[in-house]
Amino acid sequence: MELKDFLWSLITIYVCARVMGELAARIGQSAVLGELLAGVLVGGSVLGWVEQTEPLKLLGEVGVMLLLLEVGLESDLQSFLRVGWSAALVAIIGVVTPFGLGYGLAVGLHMSQLQAIFVGATLTATSVAISARVLFDLGKLKTAEGNIILAAAVLDDILGLVTLSVIVGLAESGTVSWLDVGRTAGLSVLFLTLAILVGIRYAHLFSRLVNRMHTRGRLVITALTFTLLLGYAAEVMQIAPLVGALAAGLVLARTEHQGHIGERIKPVTDVFVPIFFVLVGAAVDLRYFNPFHPENWPVLLLAGGLAVAAVTGKLAAGLGTVGGTINRWAVGVGMLPRGEVGLIFASVGLSRGIITQGEYGALLIVIVLTTLLSPMLLKRAFSEAGR
Amino acid sequence: MELKDFLWSLITIYVCARVMGELAARIGQSAVLGELLAGVLVGGSVLGWVEQTEPLKLLGEVGVMLLLLEVGLESDLQSFLRVGWSAALVAIIGVVTPFGLGYGLAVGLHMSQLQAIFVGATLTATSVAISARVLFDLGKLKTAEGNIILAAAVLDDILGLVTLSVIVGLAESGTVSWLDVGRTAGLSVLFLTLAILVGIRYAHLFSRLVNRMHTRGRLVITALTFTLLLGYAAEVMQIAPLVGALAAGLVLARTEHQGHIGERIKPVTDVFVPIFFVLVGAAVDLRYFNPFHPENWPVLLLAGGLAVAAVTGKLAAGLGTVGGTINRWAVGVGMLPRGEVGLIFASVGLSRGIITQGEYGALLIVIVLTTLLSPMLLKRAFSEAGR
Repeated sequence: MELKDFLWSLITIYVCARVMGELAARIGQSAVLGELLAGVLVGGSVLGWVEQTEPLKLLGEVGVMLLLLEVGLESDLQSFLRVGWSAALVAIIGVVTPFGLGYGLAVGLHMSQLQAIFVGATLTATSVAISARVLFDLGKLKTAEGNIILAAAVLDDILGLVTLSVIVGLAESGTVSWLDVGRTAGLSVLFLTLAILVGIRYAHLFSRLVNRMHTRGRLVITALTFTLLLGYAAEVMQIAPLVGALAAGLVLARTEHQGHIGERIKPVTDVFVPIFFVLVGAAVDLRYFNPFHPENWPVLLLAGGLAVAAVTGKLAAGLGTVGGTINRWAVGVGMLPRGEVGLIFASVGLSRGIITQGEYGALLIVIVLTTLLSPMLLKRAFSEAGR
Repeated sequence: MELKDFLWSLITIYVCARVMGELAARIGQSAVLGELLAGVLVGGSVLGWVEQTEPLKLLGEVGVMLLLLEVGLESDLQSFLRVGWSAALVAIIGVVTPFGLGYGLAVGLHMSQLQAIFVGATLTATSVAISARVLFDLGKLKTAEGNIILAAAVLDDILGLVTLSVIVGLAESGTVSWLDVGRTAGLSVLFLTLAILVGIRYAHLFSRLVNRMHTRGRLVITALTFTLLLGYAAEVMQIAPLVGALAAGLVLARTEHQGHIGERIKPVTDVFVPIFFVLVGAAVDLRYFNPFHPENWPVLLLAGGLAVAAVTGKLAAGLGTVGGTINRWAVGVGMLPRGEVGLIFASVGLSRGIITQGEYGALLIVIVLTTLLSPMLLKRAFSEAGR
């Protein structure tokens, strides 16, 4: 990619994301909704202005890591732990129900075992990035519901990792090594726990290090490097790097510099994040959405069924919350967006030949639907409750 | 490039740049000196930890653009215009003398005409990026000397563009189309003048636009997009995009948001800029520097001669300044660094077969020498003058 093309892509992304984000905010929606739609617009299936090139993708990935760093910085571990049981229940119900419903539907439609398992699995994983961003936009990050949604989405990510390794095992050898699966799950839980506990124990060293530096950018670069390190470690453990970044944020929230880090990191996040959401939007292939094309009818029907499974599954998860004052509807709605996680899942399935083009199209529709629906419904869920 | 490798490269760059930058500051040097040396260290000829991959290069390019945006924001057009004649003289003398000396030396050493012209030309262009960064680090951006250095370095860039097009013409067809050369030069001057004049005339529209936005990041994204646009336009006109970014900064300096833009853009600059300087350092091939290898002796001798030409040429340029109170020594020293511009020049020559490996090595040594010398000498030049 030449510099000229890179600059032009960035300009396109920023202008479109901003215009659409502002419009979304103007009609009372989360700005991320506008950015996702901007992505669909500039992506290959409409205008074709922005391609999924490597530098842009990498910048986007760093972008969500920064977003999760900010989420961590503004949260505190205590309030996550306080909702631990609720979050665990939401995560588990939110994985089991959509999987069961999707699997059942697929078997009923005479798909193969492997296909049915795959379709069910694609419906399970909530997108941490989109949930976090919507909560941010709505200013609901620090509510009990916000904490439950985030914690459950992170647990989802680990459960999703387990599911994916089960499926890849099934597809490749026809059997599942439960030992491997258990090890993957155990290691990732261990990593998260250790990173946060050890991190908090030694958080004061961060401030001491920064205080000994004299040159410009000491705070932002040290915080960023720490975040990249934990993200890298997560990636090595095969968990999503943004889970590592969240851990970094939770640790940095315990330092004396917490406020200043947030202040300095915000503009950096603002620069990287739109790239991510625009690319997620741009990855959507609209060709399956046309209802006037008879070939799409079976796809749309399947999508309808799967969408019901995907939505009711996560809404049921919202019921899993413990405690009387929780807005269960908001939690369920907040768990809806499948976003980039679903997209990755679906495209793995397509490229490995596990699912057909039509099934891929149907999953795509479900992912777009849940992702766009969640910001709208979440806003209403919070405002109706008068919070 | 996979995400894992990308994260690891960033971590390496940030850790090494910071450690070396802090050390440089500790011994009273500009931090950029440390970052350049960190680059040499992690680059291919020593540790080989960081490769010149595309995403990193693009980020670095955006980094220098942000640096020049900041320079523009903190400057004002008036003080540039006030030193206009001095800057023009410095630029012209600073191109003509090193060219003449280098060319003469090369002819004396029986190089071909084309080779001699090329070697002379490589000695001409001052690196805007490094000069600007050193002035920044030393807090001398707003001095008359700082203004002269920057303005002259920008003019240098345009003169360098002209020189390069002359040489490419000579190398390809043996003749020079003076019409083309004149058009290139004219267009780039026109672009700069127009961008700044029209920009300042309509600068109030920027603030009006930003004030109508409601979502997060409106200031930083709008300023960045404007900068990328002018950088892109410069790139299209074949001038360095950082000249466009400087123009953007000068325009934004006239808006009511000037202070806030600076505040928000600083952390973003801090994140991007070290990548650029580390990559410049990493591009240095140390194999020609070993004096214990007899094969290198002619290279080192040639380098010695060219270094004298390169240094005296720019110091002579310092004498070109008009006005009694100017620290002419500081101006000359500030024009020394050839940095990435020289590197690009030299590698074009090598890859097109215009110069030999040995001549390339000698030029490399000169570039490194002038680039590392300038921060050290500039600091002393300013402090001796008691300013």
